[in-house]
Order: sequence, then structure tokens, then C-alpha cells
Amino acid sequence: MTHRIAVIGGDGIGPEVTKEAIKVARAAGASLETQDFQLGAAHYERTAEVLKDETLAELMSFDAILLGAIGPAIGSTTVPSGILERGLLLKLRFALDLYINQRPFLTLDPTLTTTHKPVDMIVIRENTEGAYVGEGGLLRKGTPYEVATQGSVNTRNGVERAIRFAFDLAQSRERKLLTLVHKTNVLTYSGDLWYRTFLEVASEYPAVITSYNHVDAACIYLVEAPERYDVIVTDNLFGDIITDLAAAVSQGIGYAASANINPERTGPSLFEPVHGAAHDRVGTGEANPYAAIRSAAMMLDFLGDTAIAAKIEHALAVLPPAGATTTEIGDFYVERVTH
Amino acid sequence: MTHRIAVIGGDGIGPEVTKEAIKVARAAGASLETQDFQLGAAHYERTAEVLKDETLAELMSFDAILLGAIGPAIGSTTVPSGILERGLLLKLRFALDLYINQRPFLTLDPTLTTTHKPVDMIVIRENTEGAYVGEGGLLRKGTPYEVATQGSVNTRNGVERAIRFAFDLAQSRERKLLTLVHKTNVLTYSGDLWYRTFLEVASEYPAVITSYNHVDAACIYLVEAPERYDVIVTDNLFGDIITDLAAAVSQGIGYAASANINPERTGPSLFEPVHGAAHDRVGTGEANPYAAIRSAAMMLDFLGDTAIAAKIEHALAVLPPAGATTTEIGDFYVERVTH
Ligand SMILES: CC(C)[C@H](C(=O)O)[C@@H](O)C(=O)O
Ligand SMILES: CC(C)[C@H](C(=O)O)[C@@H](O)C(=O)O
Repeated sequence: MTHRIAVIGGDGIGPEVTKEAIKVARAAGASLETQDFQLGAAHYERTAEVLKDETLAELMSFDAILLGAIGPAIGSTTVPSGILERGLLLKLRFALDLYINQRPFLTLDPTLTTTHKPVDMIVIRENTEGAYVGEGGLLRKGTPYEVATQGSVNTRNGVERAIRFAFDLAQSRERKLLTLVHKTNVLTYSGDLWYRTFLEVASEYPAVITSYNHVDAACIYLVEAPERYDVIVTDNLFGDIITDLAAAVSQGIGYAASANINPERTGPSLFEPVHGAAHDRVGTGEANPYAAIRSAAMMLDFLGDTAIAAKIEHALAVLPPAGATTTEIGDFYVERVTH
Repeated sequence: MTHRIAVIGGDGIGPEVTKEAIKVARAAGASLETQDFQLGAAHYERTAEVLKDETLAELMSFDAILLGAIGPAIGSTTVPSGILERGLLLKLRFALDLYINQRPFLTLDPTLTTTHKPVDMIVIRENTEGAYVGEGGLLRKGTPYEVATQGSVNTRNGVERAIRFAFDLAQSRERKLLTLVHKTNVLTYSGDLWYRTFLEVASEYPAVITSYNHVDAACIYLVEAPERYDVIVTDNLFGDIITDLAAAVSQGIGYAASANINPERTGPSLFEPVHGAAHDRVGTGEANPYAAIRSAAMMLDFLGDTAIAAKIEHALAVLPPAGATTTEIGDFYVERVTH
């Protein structure tokens, strides 16, 4: 089946890595009709627009969105800090209700990692609530009495659907371990809702072995004993933090893929590498398209092309040759999915 | 000068490690009049009290507080989750206005660490505000429409005094690097106050080289390139997270000391290892008193016994013999400070 894919290459190395991802996906047999959307820092500088309502509406008509990376160069003065992340990436997550941010981490070669410990885990990050809602304000701004408030909002429905998704996933895996990560001893209100909901849903999944870790302890375990994790479920902010850490202790941020999905498929889901725009690597051939390729595999799997996705995942079980450039890495996986 | 020290050994291995810390401090020449306070899980189980007002008032009359660890055994059902942490540790931080949580990290032997990269940095964590204030609530609790809110409250004064302390510290160090860690692209209100205040204070410290990292990126750097950090300043919650991570990538959590201080000395400051109660290690001799000993050195330094503190710090530059027990490690450093 042909899928209509909106490709937002975005900024920095984003367009380079999505290009390789599409190339490998097609080589593996996917039938993709792609349309490029020029969005991100350069687009903003040209038009002073981040994402127009019409563009959002147009994106909504696609089967899926593949995104490279969004963000201005470090120290950019033409793009106000955070405006692209919030106006584009977070806006898409919220507007499309992509409430699951699924991030798998797999160590292929522990000798090439910083901690030398094999990681094989998936983080399910709640993707539409928590501290990401933008609640708060600046009271008496600019005075010595200024107060900045920043709220985290967590609904029963929002928490439960993320937890339920994580239980389903854990149940489908060999080890069937699910760990809730939060900071219940300090964040008593949100922690209470998360913990209570976790226990309630757990009672429906007797085969899943559950545990709980405070987020600070989880950071230690991710470094010292990442093998204890199989599936982790956590909130938006903790998920942001621990997935970058999980990337760093597994094969590295260049290998971390993600799927921002709406399991009810009320619209397109969005697939993107976890890494940033890395403006300093543009055109150097140093951009690693691995994470974008793996994100494309997750996209195909979600779109029902499970055999093609499995073929790419299988190809990705081998690391690219050391020193290969962006295009060479793409070619390497093209070769692997076609032979 | 004799210092009156309130010793809260606390739970699990807490009393074992504070005992060694006091032993080494005295051996190094400190004149300490100590008084033990039985507080923590066992005390709560016996009395249903966490910290009485009278006890708090009594603690306030000491020159300093040395704390071991607080927290029930994992899975305890007699102590409600978080009640000790909030009712005792956080209460002391707030009641005594210990607004600086200073946590130094130093790798003594990189070959014995998980990432094999030398770390030499100090984190200044704001210790009285942010998400730790307990703001929020559970709306429509127990219904399918439940909403949990959890607020972070940041005052100009609270943010500025932490940042100012960090600038003074960075200026006194050789590399003079100060990094602000936050998540300004998402937490726009608190991030704005932190970032703006950071820039303003920076203009008074031209010798300090400043930088900014998002907390997720900081986690990657702590694993992959911790040498880029000299002094970090951050908020309460991010500080909690990244200091456990910094401990994990430096010599390990058994080596992480901390000082909860009120620089204006309006009351006693509190010194404690970063590690927890580790109930499973009680009586095994496996508890590492290193972090407690280093915390005691920070205490003596703060109390003006700078030469004695320096002597202990110097002794601590050598790791304890592999396999040494809790008491043997104490003895090892006693030996080093007396010869
Ligand atoms: C770019 C930023 C807004 C985003 C986030 O914080 O979610 C990124 O860090 C991520 O993890 O996808
Ligand atoms: C015990 C807990 C409340 C505490 C905190 O979150 O601050 C601890 O993790 C720490 O870092 O000192």
C-alpha cells in the first residue's frame, strides 16, 4: 500500500538524515509518496511564521509525518529561544494528540558505548501533558519581587492511556518488566495520580512484573545497571530527560529513534530521531542517519508495513562501518535491505 | 573552637556512616560536641512523629547538623511514602532556609568508574523553591475526570541568590566556567526568570565564562564529556536529577557529599551524603562512609575549621582500599589525617 508521508526535514542535519531514511525505506520495499514541508528556523527567518493553520491542516491529511530535527543554531538571535520547538514540534504533538512518545534503546556493540553495559529497553513517555502544557506565568515581572510559576497538569485519562499502552507493550515482550519512573516523594500530587493509576492498571496485567523508581535513582541505574530495565513509563519531562540519558548510555544519541503516536489513529503520527539539528555538522557527512532510518522503520511498522519494517530493523542490527559518511551509511543499509 | 553538632544518623546505613565521619573529623583535630537525634523511620514507627516543633527548635540551636540518610526500607507499609523526606529533610532545608545545596563531584580513579572519564565539578542546586514547594492539588480525585496539578514556584530573590553563589564559586576556581542547566525552551516562565537572572548577574562577573545547557542535553554531556563542566547552577528538581547522575559518572554514589547551606548563617547548615538509607546493607560492613566523611569536611570548612577540613580533603584524595569495610574505611582515613 502506498503511504502519503509529509517530510519535515527541518533544520541543521535534519534534511540530510530524513533523506537517507526515505531512501532506505523505499529500498526495503515501502511505497511512499512524499511531500517536503519547509518548516523550521530558515522558514521562520524568511516568513516570520512557525506553522500556519493551513499548513497544520494540510499535514493532518497525511498518513504519517517524518521529521528530521527542529531548532536554530546555538546562539541564534533571529529565532527567539524555544519558539520553533513549541510552535512546531510540541504543537504537532498536542494538535495531533500524539500522546505516546515511544523511544527504544538498544546497544549493538557495548565496547563502543561509554558505559560498556548492554541496554535493551523502551521508554514510553507521556507526550501531551505534565510540565509541557505551558501553564504558569511571570508575576510582577522585572521587579525584585518577581515570581515565576510553572505548572504541571496531569489528567487521569492522559496518565492512564500512557500507562495502559506501556502495560500492553511490556506484556508483549519477553521479560515483561515495567518500571514507573517519577518523583512521588516530592511531587506528591502528580506522583499520587501516576502511582495510583499505575497500581490500578497493573491489576489487569498479572503477567507484567512491575516496579517503581524515583527519577534520580533511575539516572543512577541507567548508568550502572541499565539491564534492569525492559519497559519504562514516565511523564513528559522525566521522559525527556531519561531518554537522552538512555541514548547516551546505549549506542549514543545518533542511534536514538522515536515515534510520537496516537494509537487510535485519529490523524497522522510523527516519527523523528531524538537528536537535535547539530548545525555544526551540516554538510560535513558526519550526520548519522541511523536514528532517522530507525524512526522510518517504526513509521512503517505503525502504518502496517510490518514485514518491511522488520527487514529494516534486521538490517539495523548491524552498526554502520566506522567513519562512514551520512550517505554511505544510507547506502550501507540500502545494501542490507536489498540483499 | 568547639562546635556543637546535631547528628541525625537516620535510617538504614545512616548511623554507620555518620559515626565514621565524626571519628575522622575528631581524629583530624576537630573539637566536636555531638548530640544524637533519633529521627527517621524507626522513630516514626515508634512515635508517629516525624519532627516535632520542639525538636526543630532544639536543632536550630546547634552550629551544624550532620545527617546520615532518611527513608524507610523499600516496600515499607508502616511509613507512608515520602513522609520522612518531606517532613524531615525537606522541612529542615526549608525551615533553616538552606538555599544552597552544594554537591562536589570528583573522580579519583577513572578506571574504577562506569564511564572512565574524569569529573571535577560542583553543582549548585537551588534548595528551597521550584517544584519542591509542594504547590498543587488533586481535583475531582478518584473520578475519571481527575486532574493532578503540581506547581513550580520560583522567586527572583530565590533564583538570584543561588545564581550569585554559583558565580562567586566559579570565580574562585581555576577554570571559572559556569553553566546554567534548565529547560528554557519548554518551561518558559521559570526558564525565563532563571535565564534572565543568570544573564544579569553574569554582567557583574566578567571573569566567569558562562554557558547554558538544556537539562536533557546536560545528561548526555555528563555521560559523554563531563570534563566540560566546572560549576553548574540549576533549580531544585533538575539539581536532584543531575547530581545523582553526576555521582554515577564520577566515583559513584558512595562518594557524593553535600552541603545544604545558608550562606548568611542565620542558623545551622546541614551536611549529608547524597546516597540513601540502603537498608539492605545495614550491618554488612558494605556501607561506604566516604561521602559522609567528605560531608563532614565540608561542614568543618563552613564552620571555619578550614585547615582541618583541608587535611581531611587531602586524605580523601586517596580512595579507600578495595574491599574495606565501613569501619576499616573510617580507620583508613583516621590514619591518613593523623600521619
Ligand atoms: C526539542 C524539545 C522541545 C524536545 C522535548 O523537550 O520534548 C526534545 O528534547 C525531545 O526530546 O523530543
Ligand atoms: C530524599 C529526597 C527528598 C532528596 C531530594 O529529592 O532532594 C534526595 O533525593 C536528595 O537529592 O537529597
